Amino acid sequence: MGEFELIARLAGRLSPAGATVAIGIGDDAAVFADGLVACTDLLVEDVHFRRSTASPADVGWKALAVNLSDLAAMGAVPRGALVALTVGPGWSTDDLAAVYDGLRACADAYRCPIVGGDVSRGPSLALAVTVLGHAAVPLVRSGARPGDILVVSGSLGGSEAGRHELERDAATADPALAARHRRPRPRFDAAALLAGTATAMLDVSDGVASDARRLAESSGVRVVIDLDALPLQPGVAEVARERGVAPGAFAATGGEDYELLATLPPVAVPEGVTVIGRIEAGAGVTFLGAGADGVVAGWDHLA
Amino acid sequence: MGEFELIARLAGRLSPAGATVAIGIGDDAAVFADGLVACTDLLVEDVHFRRSTASPADVGWKALAVNLSDLAAMGAVPRGALVALTVGPGWSTDDLAAVYDGLRACADAYRCPIVGGDVSRGPSLALAVTVLGHAAVPLVRSGARPGDILVVSGSLGGSEAGRHELERDAATADPALAARHRRPRPRFDAAALLAGTATAMLDVSDGVASDARRLAESSGVRVVIDLDALPLQPGVAEVARERGVAPGAFAATGGEDYELLATLPPVAVPEGVTVIGRIEAGAGVTFLGAGADGVVAGWDHLA
Repeated sequence: MGEFELIARLAGRLSPAGATVAIGIGDDAAVFADGLVACTDLLVEDVHFRRSTASPADVGWKALAVNLSDLAAMGAVPRGALVALTVGPGWSTDDLAAVYDGLRACADAYRCPIVGGDVSRGPSLALAVTVLGHAAVPLVRSGARPGDILVVSGSLGGSEAGRHELERDAATADPALAARHRRPRPRFDAAALLAGTATAMLDVSDGVASDARRLAESSGVRVVIDLDALPLQPGVAEVARERGVAPGAFAATGGEDYELLATLPPVAVPEGVTVIGRIEAGAGVTFLGAGADGVVAGWDHLA
Repeated sequence: MGEFELIARLAGRLSPAGATVAIGIGDDAAVFADGLVACTDLLVEDVHFRRSTASPADVGWKALAVNLSDLAAMGAVPRGALVALTVGPGWSTDDLAAVYDGLRACADAYRCPIVGGDVSRGPSLALAVTVLGHAAVPLVRSGARPGDILVVSGSLGGSEAGRHELERDAATADPALAARHRRPRPRFDAAALLAGTATAMLDVSDGVASDARRLAESSGVRVVIDLDALPLQPGVAEVARERGVAPGAFAATGGEDYELLATLPPVAVPEGVTVIGRIEAGAGVTFLGAGADGVVAGWDHLA
C-alpha cells in the first residue's frame, strides 16, 4: 500500500473535524474558521534526503521550506513554526547545530520564527516541522472549474535533475540544479500574484502529474496537461535525455520543485506563470505531448 | 550532552521569536499574542515506548495525550492536532490503523480533532504530534514567587511503577499502574481549578525533580520539595521498595505522570491537589525527606 492510499485509509479513522476546521485533511494545510492555517511535513534521512547529497544546513532549510510551501499554496502568511527532531547516532552536536542554522536561515528568509519544538534520540535523523500561518481568503484545491486554465509558477524538473546530478557526483553537479534540490524556495511571491484570480491552488511537491491528480479529485474535474508546455529549468532537458526520458515527462514526474499549480478563469494570466493545460468536465488527468504515454504518478514516500 | 543541554544550545541558534510570540521556547508551549498556543512532542519506538509493553492503540493515545498535557499546563483549551508519523518495517497497516484508533479515542475524549498530518517510511515508528489551543490567560513557568506554596495534582510515581511492572511481566502487571503508564490523562480538570490562583504551572512529564528544576530556573527562585509529602498512586511504594528506593524519591524521579505542578499564594488550596513544598528566594531545588540525598534529575531522552 502506498503513501496516499495509507493516508486516505488512516484519515478515515479520525474524528470528523468539520465542526472545528473549515478545511481539513486532504488539502495542503488545515484552515480553521478564524483563518488559522496549520500543516506538518516530515523530512526523513535516507527517505527524503541523503547525507551524501545534502549538508546538515541544507536539511534544516529544506525541512522548513517544504512546509512553508504548503502555506504559500493556501494563500497564507507564516506566523511561526515548531520543530520535532529525532537524532540518529551518526549525528554530532555540530551537525545538529548546522541543521538549526539551516532552519534559522529559512525562518529568517520567510519571516517565520521557530517558536517551539522537541528533540529525542532515534534511529536516524528525522524532522517533523509544523508551520502555522494566517489566510484571510484560503486558496483550496477544490475550486477548479471546467473552462479554467492551468498554470504553474517558475520552472519544473530542476530538483529531480539536481538529485540525479548529486547522486552521480556531488563535486561536478550543476550548481543551479543542486541548489534547487537542496534549498527549495516557497513561492510566496507567486502566491501573492495568483491570490486575486486563482480558483484553486496547491504546491508541486510530488510532481505535477501527481499533484494534478489531486487537483482533479478535489475539484471533481478532468485536468489536461500539455507536457510540451511545461517550463523547464535550464539543464533539465539534458538530464532527462541522458536518462532516456522525454523532458516534459521527466519534469512532470520529478518531485520537490515546490512551485505553485493553480487554475484561473481564462482571462488574465499573471506574469511569471506559464499556462500548461486546461480544466474540463470529467475526471482524472490527461497528458498531451512528448512522453505522455509514459507518465505515471510521482514520488511516494512509502514505496 | 543530554537532551536539555542540547535543546538549550540549539534554541540559542534560532531567531528571536519575541516579536511574534508572547512566550517562546522553554515553556510547555509557545503562546502567540492573540492567545494561540502550540506545542509539539515526540513519541519514538524504543525510546519512549516498547512494543512489548504498549499496544499500537496505546501508542496513538499517548502521543496525543502527552501533547494535550502541555496545553493543560498552559491553561489552554484544545483546538486541533496534527500528526506526523514515520512507519518502520515491523508495522503492518492494521497496526497503524490501531495507532490511529488510539489517536482518535484521545482526540474524542478531549475534544481535540486531528486536522492534518504527514506519513513517511522510516526506520521505526515515531509520532510527532503538534497540538494547537487557545489560552485567554496563559499560565507560564516563570511566575513563582518566594512565599508561594508548591502543589501537585493527583498522584505520582504510577507511570514509572507501571513501566517497571510491564517490563517485568505484562501479564501480571497491576492493571491500574499499567494503565497509568499506557494511557496518561491530561489534567484539564485540575488546570481549571488552579487557573484562578496559580502563579506558575507546568506539567510533570519528566518527574517532579526535573520539572521543579525548570520551574526554579524559569522563575529565578529556589524550590523546596518534601519527598515525604508526595502523593503516591496506590502500589507505587511497593514497587519502589522492591527496587530499594525510598518511595518519595522514586515518585520524584519517575517520569510520565502528566500531573500538574503549580505554585500558589499560601491562601486557599483547591481540592484535588496536594501541597508538596514551598518557594524561597534563591536558586535550584532542595529536597527534604526520605531519599532526598539520592534524588537526581529525571528522564533524559538523549541519555
